[in-house]
Amino acid sequence: MRIPRAKDNVSKEIIGKRLSAIKDLGVDLSHTIHYAFDPSSTTGNIENFIGVAQVPLGLAGPIRINGESAKGDFIVPLATSEGTLVASYSRGMKAISEAGGCITRIHSDFFMVPYLFRILSLEDGIRFAEWCEQHSEEIARVMEATTRHGKFQGMRIKHVAQGVVVEFEMRTGDAMGANMVVVAAHEAGKWIVENAPDIEPEDCHLVDMGKKAVASRAMRGFGKNVTAEVRLTKSLLQEIFHTTAADWMSLYRAVQEYWSTTGTHGHQCMFANGLAALFIACGQDIGYLPEASYGYLLPFELPDGGLHVTIQIPCLVVGTVGGGSSLPTQRECLRILGCDGPGGARKFAEIAAGVALAGELSVLGSSAAREFVGAHEALGRKRPVSRIDEGTPK
Amino acid sequence: MRIPRAKDNVSKEIIGKRLSAIKDLGVDLSHTIHYAFDPSSTTGNIENFIGVAQVPLGLAGPIRINGESAKGDFIVPLATSEGTLVASYSRGMKAISEAGGCITRIHSDFFMVPYLFRILSLEDGIRFAEWCEQHSEEIARVMEATTRHGKFQGMRIKHVAQGVVVEFEMRTGDAMGANMVVVAAHEAGKWIVENAPDIEPEDCHLVDMGKKAVASRAMRGFGKNVTAEVRLTKSLLQEIFHTTAADWMSLYRAVQEYWSTTGTHGHQCMFANGLAALFIACGQDIGYLPEASYGYLLPFELPDGGLHVTIQIPCLVVGTVGGGSSLPTQRECLRILGCDGPGGARKFAEIAAGVALAGELSVLGSSAAREFVGAHEALGRKRPVSRIDEGTPK
Amino acid sequence: MRIPRAKDNVSKEIIGKRLSAIKDLGVDLSHTIHYAFDPSSTTGNIENFIGVAQVPLGLAGPIRINGESAKGDFIVPLATSEGTLVASYSRGMKAISEAGGCITRIHSDFFMVPYLFRILSLEDGIRFAEWCEQHSEEIARVMEATTRHGKFQGMRIKHVAQGVVVEFEMRTGDAMGANMVVVAAHEAGKWIVENAPDIEPEDCHLVDMGKKAVASRAMRGFGKNVTAEVRLTKSLLQEIFHTTAADWMSLYRAVQEYWSTTGTHGHQCMFANGLAALFIACGQDIGYLPEASYGYLLPFELPDGGLHVTIQIPCLVVGTVGGGSSLPTQRECLRILGCDGPGGARKFAEIAAGVALAGELSVLGSSAAREFVGAHEALGRKRPVSRIDEGTPK
Amino acid sequence: MRIPRAKDNVSKEIIGKRLSAIKDLGVDLSHTIHYAFDPSSTTGNIENFIGVAQVPLGLAGPIRINGESAKGDFIVPLATSEGTLVASYSRGMKAISEAGGCITRIHSDFFMVPYLFRILSLEDGIRFAEWCEQHSEEIARVMEATTRHGKFQGMRIKHVAQGVVVEFEMRTGDAMGANMVVVAAHEAGKWIVENAPDIEPEDCHLVDMGKKAVASRAMRGFGKNVTAEVRLTKSLLQEIFHTTAADWMSLYRAVQEYWSTTGTHGHQCMFANGLAALFIACGQDIGYLPEASYGYLLPFELPDGGLHVTIQIPCLVVGTVGGGSSLPTQRECLRILGCDGPGGARKFAEIAAGVALAGELSVLGSSAAREFVGAHEALGRKRPVSRIDEGTPK
Repeated sequence: MRIPRAKDNVSKEIIGKRLSAIKDLGVDLSHTIHYAFDPSSTTGNIENFIGVAQVPLGLAGPIRINGESAKGDFIVPLATSEGTLVASYSRGMKAISEAGGCITRIHSDFFMVPYLFRILSLEDGIRFAEWCEQHSEEIARVMEATTRHGKFQGMRIKHVAQGVVVEFEMRTGDAMGANMVVVAAHEAGKWIVENAPDIEPEDCHLVDMGKKAVASRAMRGFGKNVTAEVRLTKSLLQEIFHTTAADWMSLYRAVQEYWSTTGTHGHQCMFANGLAALFIACGQDIGYLPEASYGYLLPFELPDGGLHVTIQIPCLVVGTVGGGSSLPTQRECLRILGCDGPGGARKFAEIAAGVALAGELSVLGSSAAREFVGAHEALGRKRPVSRIDEGTPK
Repeated sequence: MRIPRAKDNVSKEIIGKRLSAIKDLGVDLSHTIHYAFDPSSTTGNIENFIGVAQVPLGLAGPIRINGESAKGDFIVPLATSEGTLVASYSRGMKAISEAGGCITRIHSDFFMVPYLFRILSLEDGIRFAEWCEQHSEEIARVMEATTRHGKFQGMRIKHVAQGVVVEFEMRTGDAMGANMVVVAAHEAGKWIVENAPDIEPEDCHLVDMGKKAVASRAMRGFGKNVTAEVRLTKSLLQEIFHTTAADWMSLYRAVQEYWSTTGTHGHQCMFANGLAALFIACGQDIGYLPEASYGYLLPFELPDGGLHVTIQIPCLVVGTVGGGSSLPTQRECLRILGCDGPGGARKFAEIAAGVALAGELSVLGSSAAREFVGAHEALGRKRPVSRIDEGTPK
Repeated sequence: MRIPRAKDNVSKEIIGKRLSAIKDLGVDLSHTIHYAFDPSSTTGNIENFIGVAQVPLGLAGPIRINGESAKGDFIVPLATSEGTLVASYSRGMKAISEAGGCITRIHSDFFMVPYLFRILSLEDGIRFAEWCEQHSEEIARVMEATTRHGKFQGMRIKHVAQGVVVEFEMRTGDAMGANMVVVAAHEAGKWIVENAPDIEPEDCHLVDMGKKAVASRAMRGFGKNVTAEVRLTKSLLQEIFHTTAADWMSLYRAVQEYWSTTGTHGHQCMFANGLAALFIACGQDIGYLPEASYGYLLPFELPDGGLHVTIQIPCLVVGTVGGGSSLPTQRECLRILGCDGPGGARKFAEIAAGVALAGELSVLGSSAAREFVGAHEALGRKRPVSRIDEGTPK
Repeated sequence: MRIPRAKDNVSKEIIGKRLSAIKDLGVDLSHTIHYAFDPSSTTGNIENFIGVAQVPLGLAGPIRINGESAKGDFIVPLATSEGTLVASYSRGMKAISEAGGCITRIHSDFFMVPYLFRILSLEDGIRFAEWCEQHSEEIARVMEATTRHGKFQGMRIKHVAQGVVVEFEMRTGDAMGANMVVVAAHEAGKWIVENAPDIEPEDCHLVDMGKKAVASRAMRGFGKNVTAEVRLTKSLLQEIFHTTAADWMSLYRAVQEYWSTTGTHGHQCMFANGLAALFIACGQDIGYLPEASYGYLLPFELPDGGLHVTIQIPCLVVGTVGGGSSLPTQRECLRILGCDGPGGARKFAEIAAGVALAGELSVLGSSAAREFVGAHEALGRKRPVSRIDEGTPK
């Protein structure tokens, strides 16, 4: 059993050979091989290409967002196979829109790559840290020379037992930035090793590439640190969620206690659900979902029976140029959101925050009104369904 | 701006209307609307359907797995848009296969749904907990009556400040189990409220639906709690990763210290990368990625210069019937793995553990050999590429 | 510079030599050498004895406790040098007592010592775990043979990457239990190594001795897992704390959000304060303070304007025989609490929970009423003080 | 049952009345009432004074420290009732001293008090944060006006869901700083409320007073962020611990895996043990033990068979003026360490780091050499003891 490989990764011939290899396993791929583009457009995105995974795409919304980059009503493409997800998010979006929209803001915006310089002497480490600080301008120059769009933001230097960790931070424009900052940090590391006294190449280690939840990043921000908030009136809560602020808060406090006492990372219901669907639709790197879902939900009961709800996502790593964002269907979805041009990444981050907020509203709202299981039964299973649009009533 | 809705969610007519709505935004969807199946086959998976996200699919492997359910060599379909991912995992799989395969085992296997019964009296709560324990047989019967495949496994009862949390656990066969256990636990909750003294319906709250990393679940297991291990010889490390066990461990210790001192959740490099690609290819619920990526990597240097490497994923929530697993391309990918029949879920979990192990081997291995940035540059960006197969040499 | 040592650790002569050594440093110890007992009574508690630290002791309370072992009103000795601490706890105790007392219950009660058996093979590890389970009766016998008071409670077996961790659990009567269970687990480990196939002595490691906060222990309980609750009426909140349930909850939610977003371990204000003072007064092992302070505070606003407040301490490690509990002043303090006889440890744990609850009530109560800084200023600094008894008004 | 109170908290008369009240409980306090000072010297440290807890004091060391403030050999007073503790720390100190001493450094040094300004509008919150930043000089002036010794270090401003958290940071000289910074931050908060637009007094909440482990503080530092390191040669390991670097590392890796997979906060064995004993002896606030014990141990095996061991305590809150540090026996212990003069707090922090390092060396060293249980048996229990000085051989 071998996967056929060739220099030309996407020629008809080599793809055909791969499909034969699969056929030899007794498996006919009649759907996977249907795709709507020239395979060569996947160069740089995949190796050993054979076709595509087709993930159903539905429309949620519209959601009104009053952000800095995202302003207006957005129809949101979501790729998922979980029944009720689109309906549930649509319901939350409807609530947000009827409330006049959610406010969104980005507090910080950079990608970071950490290197450990192993220096088994505390005194040498302190001298090394000072040297790095004194040479930050040169380091900035070295890093910026590797990229047209990235801007050096700074270094955070931390003494650890084995030496010194330097976290290299860059603003990355519309790119998600992992590749960009890895390359720039690599050059910075090389330059430091060449120029700093008493540090050897083998003592310089890239120590993290993200793709997991990390307390220090959640404190500091990573990618886009974004917040969304909305204010729901008493009547809106009643109309859309058939619940009250008091019932909502009662459920929230039960859930919050469970989060606290079980050691839940991040205090939120289901950021992962909507963000995954949005990420797949729009060509984002799904590997960053664990940190994106390490965030916070905080509702606040208002004296007038309304509810002020805020969500915060400190580590939302997204981009609208490069990576999966230039693939054909993914590009189309970014276009639906108007995020395919300059400034698209920040706009996309604000929309994503709105989506996450919509999901929290809906899942707690329906639970508070005790409809949760009912909705799952009605939409999530292949039965005659009569309430298909309940989430988004006419 | 409105998304057209109708009773028949997937008729040509209503889909057409939705596409018109998107066209009104000035966006032409020429790729998204290409799919290889009858839209009605998505019923139960999506609402407001308009087409598909096409995610590039590549083949990694083969990987040899010596598990309980997964035995033999597997070619692994991965859906991703991150260049180098397939090549990198292939390289790890090659190492595993040349080492004779990895051993995999599932330590526990159940889905759990927690309900809070709010009882604002410690003494009443203790009485209530005892009552639940005394009635576990009836509760098992109530839960099992809701499902053909689920088997009651037990209840874990915990006193919290607001009352008593009952975690209802079921073995769920080949289904991932979220829907199944939510329904069963709902009935159990209803039965308890009807039969237990002094508890009202409004005091019974579903307090978690997963989709985030939780310490208590990582301790206890959730979904499949699965381990994979492999032993790499000195010469294999040299041949495939151009590194030594000592260099590997040196890097690992650097990375481990970074994990410890930054508060990283789970100690692993990149479970999220390969698992996301496997989940998308095979129709898994990507929302469970945050807990799947809360796991552990532990290498152990052997006296003979070899390396014993183990990974553990305590919370791998997967299924091979229901949900996205029955969609057309997703089904084909499950067939490539031989996971489309009875017992497929446990087999799939063991393969997934092997995939995660392969990724850790590759990312640390290439980093230890200082090729990491180079490979990213070569594969991840749209440049003339000459080392396309470096990850998986001939 | 040397510390004089001798076979007889506490003879006048050797103590005198040590004091001379200190005098050689230019330091006269005129207070430290005043103690109220025969130095030989410290045998087993200290090495290189020279005297005592004298920590001021104040009385707080009385506090009414409606527990299982602790029933009635208790005056609580607290040893501290933090001004306002005794007054603040007294105020909380007054609130509890006027509310009719707090209910306390112990959910679980055992000490645990974990051993790793290093087995670098998943299959062998699984076999080993099964072997241990099959031999649990013999293991119980081996452990119980080492102690007159300890009772085997069970083993929890966990597969980790390097092998198998066995957590040996014992009920320890009135002893705190660390020494007892370390000895018993040591014998168990020895017996396993001698009797189980394929495990060597050098592969058996004691991997934890407590004295830090651990999520898995907080989930499972360690030492005494104890809860205390009280219900404060609207008028009581007004009278004692000059606040309302609504203001209390408003502050609590602010604090709770800070805990969530900063990654605070355990959600409570200041368990550490009162528990430290109680531990020092009563001869407890202060090293267990980090886990004792990993607990939870949960207030609940009642419809009638009252407040239901619960605290939970999952890992309270205390004892009333052995260790520091038999030292002279410490014994006297245990006697003040009536905890010097059989069953004293559980009684003491319930009182400790009441003390922790009193502290939370007071610190949040005074903060909610904005008196916090004022009280600190008045009591904590050496100024003319006119409101010394404000915490506990006549 | 009442505790007698009076304006003069420490007159003979009122103390006598309190003792009578205790006598009425049937308890005679013959030891507690022996103390070596005028009760009035406890004013500001305790309320409802009746006497003292006498905690046995032993001498450990000497330990050689090559720090910035602490230079030379130190005999360390430790107050504890845990047998073997002094001997065990002495053994570690002996290893450090024979290795030529440990290096210690303080990376950061400040106390911090966080206030939440509740602003339920993201946009207003952003404006408020900007306003605070623009007025940082005024705020510094307001804070510094409240203290002779404190210096404003900065503000860290964080957007949370309910508004804006401002963390006020000050350098506090030789004072521990809690009282100082609470007062200064209170004035800052008041000034902000008076001067910033649109913020009301009731929206300003003190949200934390420390005394628990917090991830964000462990990342940032709190109190003294201090590191200690030492290099043990192969022969020293053999001579003092009867072990090798390889056995040490093997045990360490077992323990490290247990820490990772159980969710241990901080990765260290027993900082809490020695720090508690040092804190009690020297009049530190024991409530800060939970954060002091949230630190890291990292050993590194050297090619020559030696061991490089580092410990880091990011949150060591200590002071040498004010609080318990001026009580009689506590002052004497500070004098033994030479920490009673200007600059004493930083010197004390460096010594404390050395003490923590000594404890880790000893507990892992003896465990690696399998003597652990034996030592406990010999020293920790009231039996004829023949190896009393084993920890600190002649």
